[in-house]
Amino acid sequence: MKKVGVAILGLGVVGGGTYQILTEHREFYQRTQGVDIEVESVLELNRERALALGVPEEKIASNIAEIVSDPDVNIVVEVIGGVDAAREFVLAALNAGKTVVTSNKELFCKYSHELERAAKRQNAGLYFEASCVGGVPIIRTLLDGVQANNISSMMGIINGTTNYILTKMTQEGSSYEESLKEAQRLGYAEADPTADVEGYDAAYKLSILSSLAFHTKVPFGKIFREGISGITQENIADGKELGYVLKLLAIGKQSESGIEVRVHPTFVRVGHPLASVNDSFNAVFLTGDAVGDIMLYGRGAGALPTGSAIVSDIIYAATHSENKYSTFKNTANADKDTKFVTDFKSAYYLRLTVEDKAGFLAKIATVFGKHNISIAHLVQRSAQEDGKVPIVLVTHETHELAVRSAVAKLNAMEGVGHVDTVLRVVM
Amino acid sequence: MKKVGVAILGLGVVGGGTYQILTEHREFYQRTQGVDIEVESVLELNRERALALGVPEEKIASNIAEIVSDPDVNIVVEVIGGVDAAREFVLAALNAGKTVVTSNKELFCKYSHELERAAKRQNAGLYFEASCVGGVPIIRTLLDGVQANNISSMMGIINGTTNYILTKMTQEGSSYEESLKEAQRLGYAEADPTADVEGYDAAYKLSILSSLAFHTKVPFGKIFREGISGITQENIADGKELGYVLKLLAIGKQSESGIEVRVHPTFVRVGHPLASVNDSFNAVFLTGDAVGDIMLYGRGAGALPTGSAIVSDIIYAATHSENKYSTFKNTANADKDTKFVTDFKSAYYLRLTVEDKAGFLAKIATVFGKHNISIAHLVQRSAQEDGKVPIVLVTHETHELAVRSAVAKLNAMEGVGHVDTVLRVVM
Repeated sequence: MKKVGVAILGLGVVGGGTYQILTEHREFYQRTQGVDIEVESVLELNRERALALGVPEEKIASNIAEIVSDPDVNIVVEVIGGVDAAREFVLAALNAGKTVVTSNKELFCKYSHELERAAKRQNAGLYFEASCVGGVPIIRTLLDGVQANNISSMMGIINGTTNYILTKMTQEGSSYEESLKEAQRLGYAEADPTADVEGYDAAYKLSILSSLAFHTKVPFGKIFREGISGITQENIADGKELGYVLKLLAIGKQSESGIEVRVHPTFVRVGHPLASVNDSFNAVFLTGDAVGDIMLYGRGAGALPTGSAIVSDIIYAATHSENKYSTFKNTANADKDTKFVTDFKSAYYLRLTVEDKAGFLAKIATVFGKHNISIAHLVQRSAQEDGKVPIVLVTHETHELAVRSAVAKLNAMEGVGHVDTVLRVVM
Repeated sequence: MKKVGVAILGLGVVGGGTYQILTEHREFYQRTQGVDIEVESVLELNRERALALGVPEEKIASNIAEIVSDPDVNIVVEVIGGVDAAREFVLAALNAGKTVVTSNKELFCKYSHELERAAKRQNAGLYFEASCVGGVPIIRTLLDGVQANNISSMMGIINGTTNYILTKMTQEGSSYEESLKEAQRLGYAEADPTADVEGYDAAYKLSILSSLAFHTKVPFGKIFREGISGITQENIADGKELGYVLKLLAIGKQSESGIEVRVHPTFVRVGHPLASVNDSFNAVFLTGDAVGDIMLYGRGAGALPTGSAIVSDIIYAATHSENKYSTFKNTANADKDTKFVTDFKSAYYLRLTVEDKAGFLAKIATVFGKHNISIAHLVQRSAQEDGKVPIVLVTHETHELAVRSAVAKLNAMEGVGHVDTVLRVVM
């Protein structure tokens, strides 16, 4: 039976899960996959953590050099996170001809071109299923499941932390702050939650997924990004009344005009398959020209779900001796032939607070009309204690830049009021 | 650039879709996959149909021998359906060393062992993604996406015809007969709908999927099968009241007691991801010991969705030169070491019509008690015109054989009434 040696760099949550899956399933993989996968060594500065997980002392390496020079190690799993050390270690492994499996979305988003070049040079494998959407095999699906399709659209709930927070705000009526605190208490959110709540994490993943879906490098810097920290309970309640659920969506679209990529809180029509993806679950909804609509749903994070993706990559690498690389130019920046759309189209939700004076509706309507924005739905709420009147409106599909311009105009007008929230809507 | 020649056997709905996808995307696959895939020949008795699809006359073969002896044909796509001719043609192609891509669930379910033996002998590829759940890459996911997992459960809506009929009965209150007629009018159901409505189609697919998920041959004959033709509007309405939606589920479970495989109409709790899979959409909900719950959703049939699966298999075969075969004993019958569970556990819905006499509830309760069946919910409806009283009840989880025995007992008792419907329930 083929024997495959694995080294794990970092025994944090995901590294620990990976170690557990590999050791508990060793006989299972011998029987079902025909390979004997053994953890040969781990790199973990906290020796106690390694020992507590049951790693034999002699398998705890002192440094990366020990691992990359070990002829018994065929596959190196990078799950330390961060960019600098991870990049150095992954390059060292690839340069030594080891196949690398990584869960590191930031590293892969920023340096896939460099890593792939090193892998190609040594004919080593480079696998990154675990970098996006945990245990859901979205990367394998893009590469080997729907590759017959020209994919026109991808919409994903690909950050579990924000989906947990928004679900809590929706189902329990709690505030953003309370929901974030609860997410932190449960370990779903970091002490500094910026990467999740401001959409960086989702944007790294969208960069990776849209590069694969659209067969061209989509760099992080091309992604429009807006987080959920400004979302209020009023917005959630407005959505409920209008038949929408709020989700942080990562959206990638491709058409003759170019590629648009964006991460922002989005109202999704109740009844859309993405609308019922709750808590820390993730899902990606794809549209291909042959397959039509397809959705993959599952846990986007966690020791065992992410470990499932890592170990599935390890098994794939162990049972396929050929290595495949991107067929597009995998570069640091976008290819000069790739067009990006910034003035994308969408429907919009706006919440305004206006002065309770005659004629304010006419003023709003005039500004919208001048920007060619047509209103699909408008609700005027009862006056607030301060005498101002909240207005909620939803537009028909229009252009992002037209909305931004109309909002700037409205906010600059004397005595009309203020646009408090602008959110995009998926019908 | 690598050149790959394809022959398509049968230009029906799926064959036509496959031809269309391959010809329209030829340049796209050169650019995105680095292969030039050309349709070299087709086998289609109806020459007019082939010509209408745009197939050049010289590419229409007269017989299978012409195709399997053509050195320019690398991959043979079998989409003629049925078993006898398909089996002969696929074996001829494999014996000639051609890789085969098939959408034929009945053929693959019944003869996978024979086809795989022929493929192995010639080191030819054998691909069958399109045999199950149309364009949804469930087979690729089982083989290469969640293979790190010991899968304990699989529940699928894997027949579009029955899901369309049940959705119509649920959303529009129409009868089974009306809904079937509408499905036939739209081309979702055949003139003889038996294979779909009696669950044969779903059982072929479940045999294939559960063999892959559980790493052992699960023959068609081991699958408990019950169709939807006995479902009434009363059952659907009872479900609505109780918070359930009726779906034809294909269920595979694996535990230490063995494997259970069954296809039957099932009440699914509203809120479960499968409950909102409507119309002709399909979905498979898997539970793995690492990944947890995961669901794949999409169109289970149709020219282009099924063509997507076929062409994705063609591209996979064209870009991977190694062929993989089952790592389990792929035989005609189940392995003697595989245990099957027939007395499976489930919750149950029962609808009875009883004589309106004092004491009937006590009699029912006694029979259930003797069979260790405990009742979770019971509704007594108003008496019918004939004076009989409908009773709807839902049990806690119990055993299939206990329920069958209790039902037989109740139906044999004088003056109690009759059990009209027994349906299984997924909470």
